[in-house]
This record gives sequence, C-alpha cells and structure tokens, in this order.
Amino acid sequence: MDKKTHKLAPGAPLVGGPISELSTPIPVIDEDRLENNITRVQSYMDKIGKTFRPHIKTHKIPAIAKRQVAAGAQGLNCQKVSEADVFADAGFQDILITFNILGAEKLEELAVLNERIGDLKVVADSTTTVSGLSGVFGGRDKALKVLVECDTGGGRCGVQSPAEAADLAVLISDCAGLTFGGLVTYPGADGEAETEAFLSGSIALLKARGIACGIVSSGGTPSLFNAHLVPSATEYRAGTYVYNDRAMARAGHCGLNDCAMEILTTVVSRPTQTRAVIDAGSKALTSDLLGFDDFGYVVDYPDATITGLSEEHGVLDLSKCDPDQRPQVGDRIRIIPNHTCVVSNLVDHMVFHKGGRVTRVEPVAARGHVW
Amino acid sequence: MDKKTHKLAPGAPLVGGPISELSTPIPVIDEDRLENNITRVQSYMDKIGKTFRPHIKTHKIPAIAKRQVAAGAQGLNCQKVSEADVFADAGFQDILITFNILGAEKLEELAVLNERIGDLKVVADSTTTVSGLSGVFGGRDKALKVLVECDTGGGRCGVQSPAEAADLAVLISDCAGLTFGGLVTYPGADGEAETEAFLSGSIALLKARGIACGIVSSGGTPSLFNAHLVPSATEYRAGTYVYNDRAMARAGHCGLNDCAMEILTTVVSRPTQTRAVIDAGSKALTSDLLGFDDFGYVVDYPDATITGLSEEHGVLDLSKCDPDQRPQVGDRIRIIPNHTCVVSNLVDHMVFHKGGRVTRVEPVAARGHVW
Repeated sequence: MDKKTHKLAPGAPLVGGPISELSTPIPVIDEDRLENNITRVQSYMDKIGKTFRPHIKTHKIPAIAKRQVAAGAQGLNCQKVSEADVFADAGFQDILITFNILGAEKLEELAVLNERIGDLKVVADSTTTVSGLSGVFGGRDKALKVLVECDTGGGRCGVQSPAEAADLAVLISDCAGLTFGGLVTYPGADGEAETEAFLSGSIALLKARGIACGIVSSGGTPSLFNAHLVPSATEYRAGTYVYNDRAMARAGHCGLNDCAMEILTTVVSRPTQTRAVIDAGSKALTSDLLGFDDFGYVVDYPDATITGLSEEHGVLDLSKCDPDQRPQVGDRIRIIPNHTCVVSNLVDHMVFHKGGRVTRVEPVAARGHVW
Repeated sequence: MDKKTHKLAPGAPLVGGPISELSTPIPVIDEDRLENNITRVQSYMDKIGKTFRPHIKTHKIPAIAKRQVAAGAQGLNCQKVSEADVFADAGFQDILITFNILGAEKLEELAVLNERIGDLKVVADSTTTVSGLSGVFGGRDKALKVLVECDTGGGRCGVQSPAEAADLAVLISDCAGLTFGGLVTYPGADGEAETEAFLSGSIALLKARGIACGIVSSGGTPSLFNAHLVPSATEYRAGTYVYNDRAMARAGHCGLNDCAMEILTTVVSRPTQTRAVIDAGSKALTSDLLGFDDFGYVVDYPDATITGLSEEHGVLDLSKCDPDQRPQVGDRIRIIPNHTCVVSNLVDHMVFHKGGRVTRVEPVAARGHVW
C-alpha cells in the first residue's frame, strides 16, 4: 500500500532537514537520548552480571535491535511469530517469543522459523500449549526449546506455583520434539522478593528431579534497575527503556529528559481562552492512560493537560497556563506520550533526529503484525 | 512493507473459507449487519429529507464508501488531506474535510487535491486558518470552498457564537481564492436544541448580511436518529454507524446484534479459576474506554470482563461466569470493541464474512495516514 511519505519543502532532502518543518502529528526519536538509554541499561546489566535481551515491541525496527546487540545485548525478545520472522529476516539468530503459541497456522510458522534460525525459544504455561507444540515438533529433527512461564506476581500469564512450574518442566522434558529451556517471568512492579522466591523455589524443585534450568529470565522496564535483587535470574528482558516515556519517568526509571520519543503536533484551534485543540488524537498518541488522568505530557506547556482525544483531535485545557503565554493557532507543541510502544505501532516509518535535524528514517518493519 | 497475509490451511483459498480457521486476533466484518446498517441510516435520512455524507474514518475502505454512495449517500467526509487523496484516487469527487488545514506542506497538497476533484470543501474556525488558505488559493483559478466550523456544544473545535460564525463567513467571502460554503458542527450528545439555536441564529445573521449558507452540516452516530430535530441542517455526517460498536449500542443507536465488527481471539492462558488471558491486547482492541470500565464486550461470555490490556494480552475476569462454563486454553471467543473506528486503523486488510464464510478481503486503504 502506498502511504504518504515524509517530505520537507518540495525538492528539499528529508535527511539533514529540520524536524520543525515536518508535517504533524508525527513521532520523532532523539538519537542522543536513544543512545544514552541503550548504554545506561547495558552498563548496569554488565555490572550486575546478567545477560540482557531487549524486547523489540517498543521500536519494532531491526536497525535499533542491531545497535542494542552491538552494545552488548544477547538475543531478542518478540511477542509473536510474525514479529520474530521480521527479525529473523534481518539476521537475528537468538529469539525468545514470550507467548503461548496456539493454533495450526502459527504452529506451522513456528516450525518453519525454528529451521531458519539457530536458537529459537518459546514459552508455555499449560499442558494444552505444550501438547500443541509437541504435536508439531515431535516428528522433526530439530527440537524446540520451551521455557515455563511463571506468574510471580504480574497477574497475567504463567503457572501459579513452583510446584506447577516443575511439573510443566518435567512434561516438556518428556515430550518428543521439545527441550526444556528454563523459566520466564514478567513480574509485577516492585515484586523482586516474590519473584526471587518463586524462581529459586522452582529451580530447587527441578534440581531435585535432576533438571537444570538453562535460562531464568525476568523483565520489565519500570523496575529494571532492581534486577540485581533477583539473583536467581540469569537474564533480563526490557523494551520500553530504549525510548522511555511518561510512565517510565513516573516510575522513577528515568527523567522526562530521557524520553527519546516526542510527538510533534500543531495547534489547529483555539476556540476559547482556556481550550486549545491539537492535530494529535488517539491515532497519534493512543488512548493508553497507564494510570494518568490525561493523554500525554505537554513539553512546551507543562501546565496544560490533554483532557480528551478523538481520533484526529486532542483537546487541551490551558486554564492553569499563564494567560499571556498560551499557544496560538499554528504553533507547534511537543508531547511525551504516556506509553511509547503503542505509538510505534501507528506509523510505517520512524524519523530520527539529532539536535532537531533529521538523521535517518527507519521502516517500522514489525508494525502491524496483529496476528 | 511486506506484512503477514491472511491464510487458512496451506493451499486453501481464503475467500469461501471459514473465519473459524483464521489466525487470531483478527477483526472481521459481518456483511449482513454492514448492509443493514447502511440501509437503515440511509432510509431514515431519505425520510427526513437530509442529504447524508458518510465519514470514512470508520472503515477507511473505498469499496465500502462506494456501497454507501450507491445506497444514496452524497459525498464523503474525511478528516485529513492524505485520507481524501486515497478516496480521490478511488474516483470520489465530493469530499468535505472537517479539519482546520494548517502548514505549508498540507496547504500545497490541498491545492493539488482541489484541482483533481470536482467538489472539495474544508472547514475553518479561525482567521489564522482562513488566512493560510487564502495565501495558497488566492493566486489560483479554482477557488476552494470553506465552511465555518461551529462549536454548538461538542466542546472541540469551532467558533463559539453565531456572531463569530457570521464574522468568519464574511471574512471567507471577502478572501481571494476562497468561497464561503456553509456551516459545519460536530454537536454534543443530545444537543439538538442547542445546535438548532446556534445554526438558525448563524443563518439569520448571514442572511441579514446577504450571505447564503450552502451546506449546513451536523453529524455524529450516537444521536443520528434525532437528526430531524435540527431542521436548519441540510446534511448529516456519520461514520461509526456503518460498523457500530459497544458504545453505539449503549447510546441506544443500535443493538449489540447490529455490531458488524467482531474481533476473533483465542484464549492462550488460564492461570487461575477466575482468570483467562486472550491474545487480543491493545494492538487488537485499542485502549479506548469511551466511558466503559473494561475493554470490550465478550460475546460468548457476557459475564466476563476484560479488566486489563497490554499490547498482546487481554486479561479477563471470569469470576461472574458459571464455573462449569468457562473458556479453556485454545478456545476462540468473540469481542465487540468499545470503539470500532480505531480498530480499523490497526489492520492493513479487513476480512468480511457472511454467516462465518469469508466473502472478501479489502485493503484498509486510508489506514495509517497519521499526518
């Protein structure tokens, strides 16, 4: 499908041009902040001696994943087979898909992918998932590595106790075509003590049955810098840290100045003294609140709040802004999104810049892989 | 960009196949409900004697717009120049863009579009917008029609009083390259009396200055069947009615059985007796709450609530469901989204079906036109 492409003045090159001339609304990524986010987290992981596996959900861009690996990351984390296919195409060999894969079509795609790359791994948290995997991989030469997903407090997927984890690991070990690869958790916020207890308990039960855990993987950006409080984990996964967002700043993971993604918008209406309407609605910012009362942080007018979104409009309440310093129709304002990952999924290409000058435009290659 | 395409069993044709074999999560459109929604609304508009202008935001698909026009609609409503370009490519000649167009690049694109199609119209609610339009269209042969956007209670864009509307209409009439085309409002819910007062007041003021209002356009699906309560409006615009969604059912516009879009999902985890996790997260359902407490209506388990979404997971609370009738891992369940328009923006192609058999797959041609 042809999409409208970015351009500046007719005939002018995009790369090297000012982001201030880009049509709005548009998310842009600050190269310096991006690089700082990558090196800061990798340095911490190196220091505490855990391997680091970036989750591609935030950027969905192979070039950024290559930079993460160049900085020291080992392998990638995807959430879907269709995403992993994109990164396999880009040459990545070590991919962990942290999702229960079910259904004939996806299982077949997973089998093809396992032949294509050196080190594919998935998770399972039920006998149904394990049975489906074994049904497809049982007759194949190359086994699939399966890790047991544990719910250590996050309240999403995962077995509920070390005993369940051990039982499922034994089942995987006994299944034709499957190899038990270790344990995975996506823990709750500030849940390091619970997570360590769950993981160390599971490891002990498995050791008693003579089964070693290869990888023990925890993850999540908000509590990333507490990863050293979970000594049983050998690996950490995170995605959002690469761009950061308003929610990560609130969580204390970073400052607002570490948010690499800003959405450039234009004020299109000033109907009243206290109301501004911008051209960024839910199609540019998404409706993710993540516990906030409004839909993003207005960098240039921190006293303004984005009180409502329709698809193409954002409504700002300016009542707390200095009456003499309020944005006018045509003014451009920058917004830090509540949640950066979901914004990446809205654009086919991402524009990067250094000091306000475009450095590159990357295809968001894994965008839109809904199923 | 290559995206993963829909397929059923290897080698099997997609069209004619059962939607029950499509990889999930995936939105699908029921052809019978779609057709019924189109004819029901068009019949009402015909009966009350208003022209009907569908908003393409909900489907973003030229083939559906053609069906709406074949049923009696006159012209289309878009929100962006880049969307209008897609529908101009598909042969549509009468397009109203209900947005204040600002910025050099968009104004230039608007000028090109005005040469391409017979009857392009935009709105303005400020002298800044009018000045920008006049700056570009002043030197051209073909004038641009500009309607004044009025805030009759919706609280988004629009001039705040009939006096302001009349002043801006006079300014447009006096501007080189522009023609005053009428009035537009996106009214608040149940705001028919306020809207009629605002519009009739503006028309009277303009008549006193010798200026006729060509089009007087109101809109919105929730109160669509009250359009006859605004006699001053000559035209009505609506988008969501074509698919309908949970919010429209709550508003009384339709029943849940009139919702043409359902999202097919699979249960991927049952960690506890009361928790299920499905493969539809915010990348399939969006985070739009629209006043609901949860993220969609679970057709097959109406006592279940979707309490949380991450990008690829939806967490269901099953505690109110019959303990003997709860979904198991691998089961497929259908969800009516809170807001259908935003779901269309997440997929490159939309699958249509009749009685569960795929009838066609349409490119969502205007998806992803962020700027």
